[in-house]
Amino acid sequence: MNPAVFADALLNQIKTTQYGDHPPELYDPIRYIMDLGGKRLRPLMTLLATYLFTDDWQKALKPAVAVEVFHNFTLMHDDIMDQAPLRRGQPTVHEKWNHNIAILSGDVMLVNAYELLLDVETPILKRVLARFNRTAAEVCEGQQLDMNFETRDNVTEAEYIEMIKLKTSVLLGFALELGGLIACADDASVAHLREGGINIGIGFQLKDDLLDVYGDPVKFGKQVGGDIIANKKTFMLIEALEKAEGLIKTELLDWLTRTDFDKAEKVEAVTCIYDQLGIRQIAETRIDEYFACGFANLELVVAEPARKAMLLGFATQLVQRES
Amino acid sequence: MNPAVFADALLNQIKTTQYGDHPPELYDPIRYIMDLGGKRLRPLMTLLATYLFTDDWQKALKPAVAVEVFHNFTLMHDDIMDQAPLRRGQPTVHEKWNHNIAILSGDVMLVNAYELLLDVETPILKRVLARFNRTAAEVCEGQQLDMNFETRDNVTEAEYIEMIKLKTSVLLGFALELGGLIACADDASVAHLREGGINIGIGFQLKDDLLDVYGDPVKFGKQVGGDIIANKKTFMLIEALEKAEGLIKTELLDWLTRTDFDKAEKVEAVTCIYDQLGIRQIAETRIDEYFACGFANLELVVAEPARKAMLLGFATQLVQRES
Repeated sequence: MNPAVFADALLNQIKTTQYGDHPPELYDPIRYIMDLGGKRLRPLMTLLATYLFTDDWQKALKPAVAVEVFHNFTLMHDDIMDQAPLRRGQPTVHEKWNHNIAILSGDVMLVNAYELLLDVETPILKRVLARFNRTAAEVCEGQQLDMNFETRDNVTEAEYIEMIKLKTSVLLGFALELGGLIACADDASVAHLREGGINIGIGFQLKDDLLDVYGDPVKFGKQVGGDIIANKKTFMLIEALEKAEGLIKTELLDWLTRTDFDKAEKVEAVTCIYDQLGIRQIAETRIDEYFACGFANLELVVAEPARKAMLLGFATQLVQRES
Repeated sequence: MNPAVFADALLNQIKTTQYGDHPPELYDPIRYIMDLGGKRLRPLMTLLATYLFTDDWQKALKPAVAVEVFHNFTLMHDDIMDQAPLRRGQPTVHEKWNHNIAILSGDVMLVNAYELLLDVETPILKRVLARFNRTAAEVCEGQQLDMNFETRDNVTEAEYIEMIKLKTSVLLGFALELGGLIACADDASVAHLREGGINIGIGFQLKDDLLDVYGDPVKFGKQVGGDIIANKKTFMLIEALEKAEGLIKTELLDWLTRTDFDKAEKVEAVTCIYDQLGIRQIAETRIDEYFACGFANLELVVAEPARKAMLLGFATQLVQRES
């Protein structure tokens, strides 16, 4: 089976999904954000996980779209909270329409996600929804922790990892788990899929933090150093704040409190501090550890080797991301 | 059976419901808004509807709370959109905490509502959720229409009724329908419960509009004339705009456009215009029609007469509301 078959079927399913029509102010923003694109990683993971155990992977199409709709719902509401003007290079929903529409359209998107999940077969519905509810609540918990961290200067690495696990990784874990549940896989494999997704998700997010500083500007897609300019509490900054002492600490804190600065100068200076403290090495080690753990989890899944290889190959792309 | 038994069990269930704990910024607002009180009409309707068909009405307790949690989720998000400072006389969540917390806490409340609904028995789960999804989407549609109407001067009575049906009545319809579904009532009775709830809900909302103008200030609880002061597009104003001609129309439009006015004077003047146009009579007739239709729907439900009498007695309280 060519992996492109899954992607094509998924994109077609997304394109033909009906969200509602009237009033248009409520439903147009859903089509808008869903059409902005993105890598569709999570729903593809669901399809590949289903295919591990059954040829009938197409029955996972609607539930896979549910995961993507939920993900985009969180983006729509997060963008309001973060006052983000752009999403994938286009105006965010609250900018293009307004705040109230972004709130309400997001609400009905969450309802749409549940409606798409109802497509799973009745014997597994309760279990799927219970896991989805827990995941959805955790994603909200992660977003709240992220907002709380903005006004704290003493966030530990452990707290940060827990936050990104909740905010972003549990959904990748659920995406894989969902495939296992739909295919009626054994409980142990379902658990390994979830754990694998969570660990790879943490590595993926940490790599995002790393690329912001050390990414190739040509390949990265976003402005390198954007997190540094915004004082975003990434893994890099949290490690640096934990490790820095004396003059370096003073310099780092100085850059964090300055309001008037040259952006390129700040990015260069803070990157230099990271270099001195060996933050890149620490981050790369931690990323490798999480990816290794995630792959070890997935290795434990009991499935046909060729199909497992396809899932692992796809996950490897996530690991080797440069954007 | 004493109706107070249902209310006591419901209040106890609400009090002991767990929403989550960490981080507190996410979950404290849920407990706060749920503890603000209110009449708990919707969940009580669910319990009474269940009891129509089975002695085991207690199995409806958690799903009934789901309806109340969903209702309060909509209040939390509506209050942001309406920039409302107070809810039941207390600061709204976005005022007491902030906008972002009110958005996110509301989101997780919606997830909590789904989690509580999972308590229904497996054979009816899919049907209950499908109906809940439709209802939840309709409530969002109604809220969006309500916002759209704010900037329109030509809203018709039919459009207004459709809006309040979506925004408020379908949830009362679902609350009753849910009781029927949980009790495994026949399909016809389930449909009559829903229709009855919707029609009584429309009458209930129209009565709210009427009481704002003609309510007893001592009994009403809110400031009489609040809708008039705010130019709120209620049934009363929409009818008046449809009926008024000539000088009366000019006077009404003048009051709607004035920015500097004495509140008591405006309330008196607009009420006088309503009197001249016979709006009170029109509203009372329409309210009576919807209530009569709703009761006729409920009469068609096949259940033990004493139990039906209790449900109808409770519904009669809604009809005779003075606050």
